[in-house]
Amino acid sequence: MTFAEKQKQYADILVTLGVNVQSGQELVIRCDTAAAPFARIVTAAAYTAGAREVIVHFRDDKISRMRYEYAPTDVFTSVPEWESEGMNYYAARGAAFLSIVSEDPEAFKGVDPQKLAARNVAADEAFRPYYERMDKNELQWCVAAAASPEWARKVFPDRSEESAVAALWEAIFRAVRIGGNVQEKWTEHGESLKKRCAFLNEKQFKKLRYQNGLGTDFTVGLVENHIWTGGAEQTKTGVTFFANMPTEEVFTMPHCEQAEGVLKSSLPLSYQGSVIRNFTLRFHDGKVVEYHAEEGEETLKMILEADDGSRRLGEIALVPYNSPISQSGILFLQTLFDENAACHFALGQCYPNTMRDGEKLNREDLRAIGGNYAINHVDFMVGTADLSITGINASGDETLIFENGGWAF
Amino acid sequence: MTFAEKQKQYADILVTLGVNVQSGQELVIRCDTAAAPFARIVTAAAYTAGAREVIVHFRDDKISRMRYEYAPTDVFTSVPEWESEGMNYYAARGAAFLSIVSEDPEAFKGVDPQKLAARNVAADEAFRPYYERMDKNELQWCVAAAASPEWARKVFPDRSEESAVAALWEAIFRAVRIGGNVQEKWTEHGESLKKRCAFLNEKQFKKLRYQNGLGTDFTVGLVENHIWTGGAEQTKTGVTFFANMPTEEVFTMPHCEQAEGVLKSSLPLSYQGSVIRNFTLRFHDGKVVEYHAEEGEETLKMILEADDGSRRLGEIALVPYNSPISQSGILFLQTLFDENAACHFALGQCYPNTMRDGEKLNREDLRAIGGNYAINHVDFMVGTADLSITGINASGDETLIFENGGWAF
Repeated sequence: MTFAEKQKQYADILVTLGVNVQSGQELVIRCDTAAAPFARIVTAAAYTAGAREVIVHFRDDKISRMRYEYAPTDVFTSVPEWESEGMNYYAARGAAFLSIVSEDPEAFKGVDPQKLAARNVAADEAFRPYYERMDKNELQWCVAAAASPEWARKVFPDRSEESAVAALWEAIFRAVRIGGNVQEKWTEHGESLKKRCAFLNEKQFKKLRYQNGLGTDFTVGLVENHIWTGGAEQTKTGVTFFANMPTEEVFTMPHCEQAEGVLKSSLPLSYQGSVIRNFTLRFHDGKVVEYHAEEGEETLKMILEADDGSRRLGEIALVPYNSPISQSGILFLQTLFDENAACHFALGQCYPNTMRDGEKLNREDLRAIGGNYAINHVDFMVGTADLSITGINASGDETLIFENGGWAF
Repeated sequence: MTFAEKQKQYADILVTLGVNVQSGQELVIRCDTAAAPFARIVTAAAYTAGAREVIVHFRDDKISRMRYEYAPTDVFTSVPEWESEGMNYYAARGAAFLSIVSEDPEAFKGVDPQKLAARNVAADEAFRPYYERMDKNELQWCVAAAASPEWARKVFPDRSEESAVAALWEAIFRAVRIGGNVQEKWTEHGESLKKRCAFLNEKQFKKLRYQNGLGTDFTVGLVENHIWTGGAEQTKTGVTFFANMPTEEVFTMPHCEQAEGVLKSSLPLSYQGSVIRNFTLRFHDGKVVEYHAEEGEETLKMILEADDGSRRLGEIALVPYNSPISQSGILFLQTLFDENAACHFALGQCYPNTMRDGEKLNREDLRAIGGNYAINHVDFMVGTADLSITGINASGDETLIFENGGWAF
């Protein structure tokens, strides 16, 4: 396949499997100006699939960075209504939402964390109608990626720009299974994730214990009636979609007051344009009580101090260490990829649909039974080649789930 | 000067002379994704000049074209509030507005004129709060250009893309007087335009007669107390700005019920992504009663049939045929440049500030004394190397204003 054919096939699966845009439905795309050429291909695919209208909200990394550098702090404490309505309006109309990430992982390195934090608080409030519809499974959404020169340079620092961009595109294509009968490959992949989920859902473990040579020694509780989820999701009205492309994980809801011990990061974490490396989190009663990072501790601090929920866990995700993305050996510095290369957790907001009828509960009721609420949802990777995970049921019986970094069943 | 130095100087004058952004003021920039690299340079210049925040609204020609091709007509009959508020909100806050044009002159060639017309009607209504503040001299605004591959290819069809883009940038730099002490050059240029205005304002002609070998034979009335304007403008609060860069014209308000005879176009007109070539307009009692175009007549029809005012004149502009842009010999297919290469008129909306106290009148009162109101404002060029223009005063005395295409005084 030529590069153009691969891009076209990729755009097609984002539209038909990712957001699964329906005839007459609106599609909102968010992306950086660097991804404009790819956004055009996706737009054409969406109209071909019957979209009523494709609305593209462009942002520009470098212009956003200048804003953080030069605009006064009070600019970030509110989001003007025109901006939030650009999402909320279409969410209320039942649109589908595609986010194309292509950012420089260090776009905002060194900018004032107060401004970033203020923006997060304001955005959480301003975009709530949109987020609520996501949480209640009322809309299709998908996060995917496009290569950009700035991002490619960080992933392949020794190559020329042209070669780095080409290599990053190829890595993306491999990660999303481009080539041949891609629809069939995704169907099979989705089914295999569903089988893992079925096994774990049957077990209904009370807690999981993590151990590896890096120093992780950690136990986390699961909420009652938790649901392991993976592969395609489904809206209330029965439209399937893949919320992430690629996706290799099965994930569920931890009890946000039940976490003890030490987690060691196994991959760098790129968060809002800064990279946090080699960090340790110590939990007690579900809460981070001690933390340290060799690099980016200021950013880690900003995440953890955003609110109470940002110090607790909202997601447990299992990914074998031999997943295709992991085997590529590429450190993408982009959570969408790196989280699919290793077992991970998320600090912050839980996914209500990873507990039976969770999406029917309001925030307070969900929190009362262990479902975390927070302004943040930040994935961080802990999986290693020697990771073992043991499931423990109500009677204290133990089942080995992961050994040597991969599935034990 | 290097290319980067020229771009930097250009960005600086757009910020300091064009919109003249004030310390603590917001700047809204509108541009195509193709102009993102230049928008970044302008953004940096604006923050350096003390802007509180720079908001950039990106659009994408190719995505807009697909929308016109595939979205149903009713998508174009209204503008969602988030979109209009993206302008109106900042206009109400007293922001400055910079529009950077870089479009393919034929971006929308062949799309359904009904959809374009519907969008124009809806936009006129939705953005009215913004337009009203412009008309009342309550905000600084500037239209300028950035080269793009699509545009450059149309201007220099025989060159490689790289060479065409470079040539178009150089042509833009020359047109806006980049190099050396550019601030001083603009000051001198502005003063020379003001002198032309002073002479014409003193004369207060009743009408102007146009004649040339192309077939133009035309007389147009001027409103009472008309003001010839050129060079820098000034907001109510005394902030000067250049509404166009480049600008070579002096312009005033025609009486929209006084135009007789035939106008022949002397340059192609690129309007909303289509090009109209070699067209003739015959006027009677101020109104176009007959028209024909060798190419793009459908687009001309769309303009003229938008409303009553779009068949009448709203602006008379004088530009010597030996202006720098004209001398470059380049047909830009972009009104911002081509209108500064030749005498022109605009069909449609008048500029209220080209009549004494015009900006204090409401639309109906202005219309009653000859100031046109319309949904459109479309400049078209009539200047040729042999154009003569004669001013006629209340007593019937004649003064030659233009001879052989240039100033006669």
